[in-house]
Amino acid sequence: MNNNEIKNLLEKVKDGDVSVEDAFGELKELPYTDIGIATIDNHREIRVGYPEVIYCEGKTKEQISKIVSVMLKKNNNILGTRASREAYEEVKKICNHVEYNELAKTIVIRNKEIKKSESYIAVVTAGTSDLSVAEEAAITAELFGNRVERVVDVGVAGIHRLFGKLDIIKNAKVIIVVAGMEGALPSVIGGLVDKPIIAVPTSVGYGANFGGLAPLLTMLNSCASGITVVNIDNGFGAGYSASIINKL
Amino acid sequence: MNNNEIKNLLEKVKDGDVSVEDAFGELKELPYTDIGIATIDNHREIRVGYPEVIYCEGKTKEQISKIVSVMLKKNNNILGTRASREAYEEVKKICNHVEYNELAKTIVIRNKEIKKSESYIAVVTAGTSDLSVAEEAAITAELFGNRVERVVDVGVAGIHRLFGKLDIIKNAKVIIVVAGMEGALPSVIGGLVDKPIIAVPTSVGYGANFGGLAPLLTMLNSCASGITVVNIDNGFGAGYSASIINKL
Amino acid sequence: MNNNEIKNLLEKVKDGDVSVEDAFGELKELPYTDIGIATIDNHREIRVGYPEVIYCEGKTKEQISKIVSVMLKKNNNILGTRASREAYEEVKKICNHVEYNELAKTIVIRNKEIKKSESYIAVVTAGTSDLSVAEEAAITAELFGNRVERVVDVGVAGIHRLFGKLDIIKNAKVIIVVAGMEGALPSVIGGLVDKPIIAVPTSVGYGANFGGLAPLLTMLNSCASGITVVNIDNGFGAGYSASIINKL
Amino acid sequence: MNNNEIKNLLEKVKDGDVSVEDAFGELKELPYTDIGIATIDNHREIRVGYPEVIYCEGKTKEQISKIVSVMLKKNNNILGTRASREAYEEVKKICNHVEYNELAKTIVIRNKEIKKSESYIAVVTAGTSDLSVAEEAAITAELFGNRVERVVDVGVAGIHRLFGKLDIIKNAKVIIVVAGMEGALPSVIGGLVDKPIIAVPTSVGYGANFGGLAPLLTMLNSCASGITVVNIDNGFGAGYSASIINKL
Amino acid sequence: MNNNEIKNLLEKVKDGDVSVEDAFGELKELPYTDIGIATIDNHREIRVGYPEVIYCEGKTKEQISKIVSVMLKKNNNILGTRASREAYEEVKKICNHVEYNELAKTIVIRNKEIKKSESYIAVVTAGTSDLSVAEEAAITAELFGNRVERVVDVGVAGIHRLFGKLDIIKNAKVIIVVAGMEGALPSVIGGLVDKPIIAVPTSVGYGANFGGLAPLLTMLNSCASGITVVNIDNGFGAGYSASIINKL
Amino acid sequence: MNNNEIKNLLEKVKDGDVSVEDAFGELKELPYTDIGIATIDNHREIRVGYPEVIYCEGKTKEQISKIVSVMLKKNNNILGTRASREAYEEVKKICNHVEYNELAKTIVIRNKEIKKSESYIAVVTAGTSDLSVAEEAAITAELFGNRVERVVDVGVAGIHRLFGKLDIIKNAKVIIVVAGMEGALPSVIGGLVDKPIIAVPTSVGYGANFGGLAPLLTMLNSCASGITVVNIDNGFGAGYSASIINKL
Amino acid sequence: MNNNEIKNLLEKVKDGDVSVEDAFGELKELPYTDIGIATIDNHREIRVGYPEVIYCEGKTKEQISKIVSVMLKKNNNILGTRASREAYEEVKKICNHVEYNELAKTIVIRNKEIKKSESYIAVVTAGTSDLSVAEEAAITAELFGNRVERVVDVGVAGIHRLFGKLDIIKNAKVIIVVAGMEGALPSVIGGLVDKPIIAVPTSVGYGANFGGLAPLLTMLNSCASGITVVNIDNGFGAGYSASIINKL
Amino acid sequence: MNNNEIKNLLEKVKDGDVSVEDAFGELKELPYTDIGIATIDNHREIRVGYPEVIYCEGKTKEQISKIVSVMLKKNNNILGTRASREAYEEVKKICNHVEYNELAKTIVIRNKEIKKSESYIAVVTAGTSDLSVAEEAAITAELFGNRVERVVDVGVAGIHRLFGKLDIIKNAKVIIVVAGMEGALPSVIGGLVDKPIIAVPTSVGYGANFGGLAPLLTMLNSCASGITVVNIDNGFGAGYSASIINKL
Repeated sequence: MNNNEIKNLLEKVKDGDVSVEDAFGELKELPYTDIGIATIDNHREIRVGYPEVIYCEGKTKEQISKIVSVMLKKNNNILGTRASREAYEEVKKICNHVEYNELAKTIVIRNKEIKKSESYIAVVTAGTSDLSVAEEAAITAELFGNRVERVVDVGVAGIHRLFGKLDIIKNAKVIIVVAGMEGALPSVIGGLVDKPIIAVPTSVGYGANFGGLAPLLTMLNSCASGITVVNIDNGFGAGYSASIINKL
Repeated sequence: MNNNEIKNLLEKVKDGDVSVEDAFGELKELPYTDIGIATIDNHREIRVGYPEVIYCEGKTKEQISKIVSVMLKKNNNILGTRASREAYEEVKKICNHVEYNELAKTIVIRNKEIKKSESYIAVVTAGTSDLSVAEEAAITAELFGNRVERVVDVGVAGIHRLFGKLDIIKNAKVIIVVAGMEGALPSVIGGLVDKPIIAVPTSVGYGANFGGLAPLLTMLNSCASGITVVNIDNGFGAGYSASIINKL
Repeated sequence: MNNNEIKNLLEKVKDGDVSVEDAFGELKELPYTDIGIATIDNHREIRVGYPEVIYCEGKTKEQISKIVSVMLKKNNNILGTRASREAYEEVKKICNHVEYNELAKTIVIRNKEIKKSESYIAVVTAGTSDLSVAEEAAITAELFGNRVERVVDVGVAGIHRLFGKLDIIKNAKVIIVVAGMEGALPSVIGGLVDKPIIAVPTSVGYGANFGGLAPLLTMLNSCASGITVVNIDNGFGAGYSASIINKL
Repeated sequence: MNNNEIKNLLEKVKDGDVSVEDAFGELKELPYTDIGIATIDNHREIRVGYPEVIYCEGKTKEQISKIVSVMLKKNNNILGTRASREAYEEVKKICNHVEYNELAKTIVIRNKEIKKSESYIAVVTAGTSDLSVAEEAAITAELFGNRVERVVDVGVAGIHRLFGKLDIIKNAKVIIVVAGMEGALPSVIGGLVDKPIIAVPTSVGYGANFGGLAPLLTMLNSCASGITVVNIDNGFGAGYSASIINKL
Repeated sequence: MNNNEIKNLLEKVKDGDVSVEDAFGELKELPYTDIGIATIDNHREIRVGYPEVIYCEGKTKEQISKIVSVMLKKNNNILGTRASREAYEEVKKICNHVEYNELAKTIVIRNKEIKKSESYIAVVTAGTSDLSVAEEAAITAELFGNRVERVVDVGVAGIHRLFGKLDIIKNAKVIIVVAGMEGALPSVIGGLVDKPIIAVPTSVGYGANFGGLAPLLTMLNSCASGITVVNIDNGFGAGYSASIINKL
Repeated sequence: MNNNEIKNLLEKVKDGDVSVEDAFGELKELPYTDIGIATIDNHREIRVGYPEVIYCEGKTKEQISKIVSVMLKKNNNILGTRASREAYEEVKKICNHVEYNELAKTIVIRNKEIKKSESYIAVVTAGTSDLSVAEEAAITAELFGNRVERVVDVGVAGIHRLFGKLDIIKNAKVIIVVAGMEGALPSVIGGLVDKPIIAVPTSVGYGANFGGLAPLLTMLNSCASGITVVNIDNGFGAGYSASIINKL
Repeated sequence: MNNNEIKNLLEKVKDGDVSVEDAFGELKELPYTDIGIATIDNHREIRVGYPEVIYCEGKTKEQISKIVSVMLKKNNNILGTRASREAYEEVKKICNHVEYNELAKTIVIRNKEIKKSESYIAVVTAGTSDLSVAEEAAITAELFGNRVERVVDVGVAGIHRLFGKLDIIKNAKVIIVVAGMEGALPSVIGGLVDKPIIAVPTSVGYGANFGGLAPLLTMLNSCASGITVVNIDNGFGAGYSASIINKL
Repeated sequence: MNNNEIKNLLEKVKDGDVSVEDAFGELKELPYTDIGIATIDNHREIRVGYPEVIYCEGKTKEQISKIVSVMLKKNNNILGTRASREAYEEVKKICNHVEYNELAKTIVIRNKEIKKSESYIAVVTAGTSDLSVAEEAAITAELFGNRVERVVDVGVAGIHRLFGKLDIIKNAKVIIVVAGMEGALPSVIGGLVDKPIIAVPTSVGYGANFGGLAPLLTMLNSCASGITVVNIDNGFGAGYSASIINKL
């Protein structure tokens, strides 16, 4: 409820069109739906084209299905991240047109057409093993209405591969760079382009990688400018932030 | 054995009602039962209404069943935390009325009626995935004789959901706040209410969450006052501490 | 502004006693004072007897003095924690009756009489080197209107010292236990009493103490129940939480 | 040297306007100036209005002065971050109109007029102690040609202060949120607005803050969307990234 | 080969009883057996009564069996630690009288009678879940010829249980204390007795226990004197060191 | 493309032998093959005798097989590290002569004869459990054309075993030392020989080993000179680096 | 108060020689002296020849002097560890014969003759920079009545230096090994001798030494048997434990 | 003493040219000089041209001077690393021709002419602030008889600077790469050249750099091959290892 709506409500109270009790109820009640196991945030549906999002990890397939069933009533697009195949199959029982991406571990339900942006987001990966996280970012960005260009396996160990695809990267409006191991790719790209870069460390690696800590620290300490960082393996967060920036 | 009991014993020694040897035995022997694999603390049974507690993790189902069988003799209520379904089924063989809560992983045996407190403990969770730890806290508090109000899924990402349920939280005598991810909910509640808050970080999250380290540090560093913290996922500890405070 | 006040305001709008613009202003404006370098929270002053609190670390003595000068207008008691002697001397220029505690690094300005609680808070320290943090807790609790009993240097290395003072500890309503090194004291006390214990790890120690990490982990992992923990060296937080509980 | 320039150069080689040796020289030589202790990057000067930047920490005042003297020849604006007063005074010897900001530890030399953007960047701080880092971000953004609005001391411990200034934050194109202690502010703002948020953890805090690690983890684990993170205390990086986004 | 043996050898070379080549061979060759996958140390067999030891973790059952088969030739007692049941069954094929302890995960082969020491080692555990590590320590000590007394489940949460068994602990020559969770038990015992204490942290616990890091730090930082520490879960190491001390 | 090739190309452009467009294409295009899921680096094949390398962890068996199928076209030797048996069996379907080493988890395809170096690399292991990593190093070095000598199980706990094999170690041109547990072996060898030592920490150990962190820190802090370190369990990296040095 | 004393007391109560109140007082009161800032443990003085110990770090020189003045009344030997020269000079004012060791940072007051043990403790250091911690251990051991042999600078980087002094080490009853950097020396000695080894990691080193964490982990993970570990830089603890063992 | 020398000695014993006692003395005594505070390793002097090395950190200026005075007798070149100006001035009193490098913190005494190698070592730095560590590496390498080429300030943030100097790097026999911040430079160079690369992380950086931990992890996790790593800031170690390799 924004300032104008508050003012309107108050005008109506003054004019007697709305009772004090009703106004109090509206001022107190905020837009969410309480379904016992979750308090679903209804805010986002107001913004046309935005999907509803469920973070599936740590939820049972029954919980996920119940949340989806409530969301379906509003006829929005729905995105479930970190979803197992089992969760997907449970949801399929109540929604025939749900799609599952094995690599990205995403559930997608398309109820509304998505208009793609003109400018695009480049999703760049350092290695083949980073594809899973990159795909989560790409699918998120696409479902939020962004054009996405994927650039695959251009890590710094063979930097000439990067230069061959630099044009695609340079012409993007926002760049997501996904890298595991030592995570040096965002620094190198950051020194070559002047676009906002969202760096995503992945847990790909072994030994002193410590589950993605190594590339996370690399990216946070980057001496190149224009780089901001999201959590390890957080493809969704990168896709979401890139989408907000791409649509500014 | 408290001070009065020591004095009484000494009086009896003086009057010859108790021999020196017997008095020495009583002074030396303290109230516990040695059953080989465990030394069961008999202290708690003195306090009427308090359940006996078994921390089941790291114990075999046979060990758990043996400990329960000893405890059953005293006819107290019994709480087993972090119990597997297998442990529950082993205990069921010797105690028909044992209950199992799948979400909270608790075994409960009710042998005595529990009188509920008038004032209540609010158990607030940031997300659906934190429900398991919250339920352990709630069940613990209830078995110790406290009224409990649950507030679910009001994390800071949609803070209006919190404001809609603030009254329930404000009217509690003690508040338990359970949160994973970044664990910011206790700080926000701490800035809004003036009741003791027990913050419980959960291991819900991924990447730089480091198994609950992130919300643990958040809660310890909270700039809001009135917040104290228990171990990651320690729903039992929060429920126990809240119970002591609620009954002051 | 609580629910009743919102209702009253709306009634007045309805009756034409308050204009829409004014009501909007009140609903929008919340009780704080913006002084450029800080946004002072005016909430607390409503609650009679509560001091205003300034966390002095990281603020220049000029900033501290400026904040104090604004606070002084409301004639409340004022507590400055982690204050240097320099900050104290700067404040003394504008407030003659300010007191400084060298050990606790606190600035205290008493403008109103403080009524002491009947029940008391025990502040227990493991070693002489923990006295500084303990004193911060004790001064905080006293300024918030609590009676405080101090128990000094009863760490587990000579546990008989603890038993000699157990009565003072047992009769408190809340117990603050301050310990550095390995921080085992709260666990031992937690096994002996049944009162809420607030454990404060201190950075006293060396080597694998890691600036208080060792006692912090000890306290979080305590197998004794009824213990909650605050940040390393956070005497103020312990005193504040203990005060809320003591006044329940 | 972009693709068009390469093509042009090749055309000239073909037409004999440029010799092979010269073309080779141009292709090999890239725009930097080698001054022995540093290899100054000349790329940035091409982009009108962008200042040259020196990271002063770990450089002697003589090194800084030498680098500035080379940069001055190009008549650009110059920004020195993390500069000591001694460095400033050394630079003042060779450039009279250099400015020093004690709080932000920045050296600024204005040689060209800076046109401010219409849209603005909001720089929000949780506490007074975070002002130093926030000011580095704000000065950086301003020198890069952005309008900046500062919102001070609205941390989550008194969340009503935040709501009072929410309009300024909501109307920004990009939001920088600077927070130490537990660093929960970005999460709360992230749940209230739909603009890109750049979160800056600061090393303000003590104990289990671990030099800013606590707020860093909080921000990386934020359950609110649209938040990306820069290094601890990295005001410059936040200002730079926000500038790129604000100018998209 | 000790100094006397070197001298003897040289005497023989001088007297022509041993050729230069042979002496060189003896000086170069040291007592070990190379079996391809391992270089078995033959030193220990010299010391009568000492068992041969195999650390089984990370070795395949075939490797373990092969090493045992070589050791069997010398007719010594053999101890395998951290052995799976599968490894035990593989060894049983070549040695009928091998024993397996499920709790301690030890393989024991007794080929020589073991004379027990008069003085004894006390093995004290804080909780039932620490029994596995304690048993590894006890079995090790016994196989090395020490009398062992076990004291079970006397952790600090119910410290009266400890006092009831203090005599057994005080009369030991060496004390092994095994504790998980917060690991405070060695500190308390260290304040009560004046015997060498070997503290063994276990990985029993959860959350901020970090796989035994918490009790490890507690024990290293103990303010009680006379405590030394071995690696997390290292029951064998504690048993071995205690044995050396007990036999001094 | 090296400097000479650039010059040649330019000469041809000048002489009209190559068109501007074609030259541009060559300057822009670099030697890699884009196969969708990976961008295969073609650089290495130029250097005769060098195998192509696939890091198999985190790739599906189908992805590995697809990459191998592309590589096979160039008729080089191929090395796959960290390969599961399943991956091996998938590759076997398209290449009959592929070999699998269970211990080292390597896939090897020999398409060209490998000439062994005269000087050799010594691969030394501290314990039997380190053999897996050592074998990865040895196989890598051999496939790159180096003679390898293996020295097994000569850890510092029985240092006489090391002295017995010191000659083999001393006569190597490069020494790889693989050690888990406390990782002290490289320091001891470093004090005895004057050859480059590449130390490989392994994740063998338990408790405060922290997955290889302990030997990693040991090796990095070695007070012996001539030691450099690779990542935990990185046998391949050690073999590769040793190969480069051996062939200098 | 031991068992016999309790029995005697009870006999006297029975015989009327001691009143109930007095007996209660004795049973309640334990042997310590409360001096406000500290609770001095009087237990130790019973054991003839044992010095009183003050850990000086974190105490002001006035506090130290006050504690010494109380201790002096009992005419025992006194040891102050981690004492600054300032503390020493403060103590000198009240005790003329106090000695200060600059290297070990110890204050020693000899009031009683100390009889040296026949068997000796070897204190071995890896490098010159470890001498300070080693000296603290040696002085502690000597003041507790042990003969001490020092072996200096025999770290593993030049292992032949160790072999030259092995006899002194082998003939000790207990061995203290002090090492910083990678801390490998105890492992090597542990493989050569069969005496109890107390390993002391020091904070000597840099970079990934992390203030002594590296040698601490090395020592805890040692694959040699018979090694136990004390806290980083804890020379006193090593000297104390070695003394207990040497006197068994 | 190598194998031949042992054989010769034995021959002489056999022939009666050397007595048993003398031979025993030689076999037992190894080449070091015991000067009380240090056991100076005489091994290195045998190898002509190698300097003696003193690690000065943690040693007093008097200790350093004493060690130098002993070394001077052998007329070798001497290198002191991590030396303060005070240490240099103390040494100057006993050796007039000692040189001090302020940047590298090295003391150098040249007593013998050093012949430079034909092949050279490239010492590459990412930023100006890394120069100190790089200079320590370069001076070490030079004093050990290597030609050194320095390449300064070519970090990945402006990668074109690197390409401009790639020829110098490619033509080296060994490459030392020194980098702080995120430490990505070795990975990029490793993808471009095929020479052994010794990566040196520096403690240059702030925030989540954690004193060089970030670049250390980056380098250990490098996906480029041929990179080995030394300790943070360990310029000496890099120079030493590079020297051994360069002279193979």
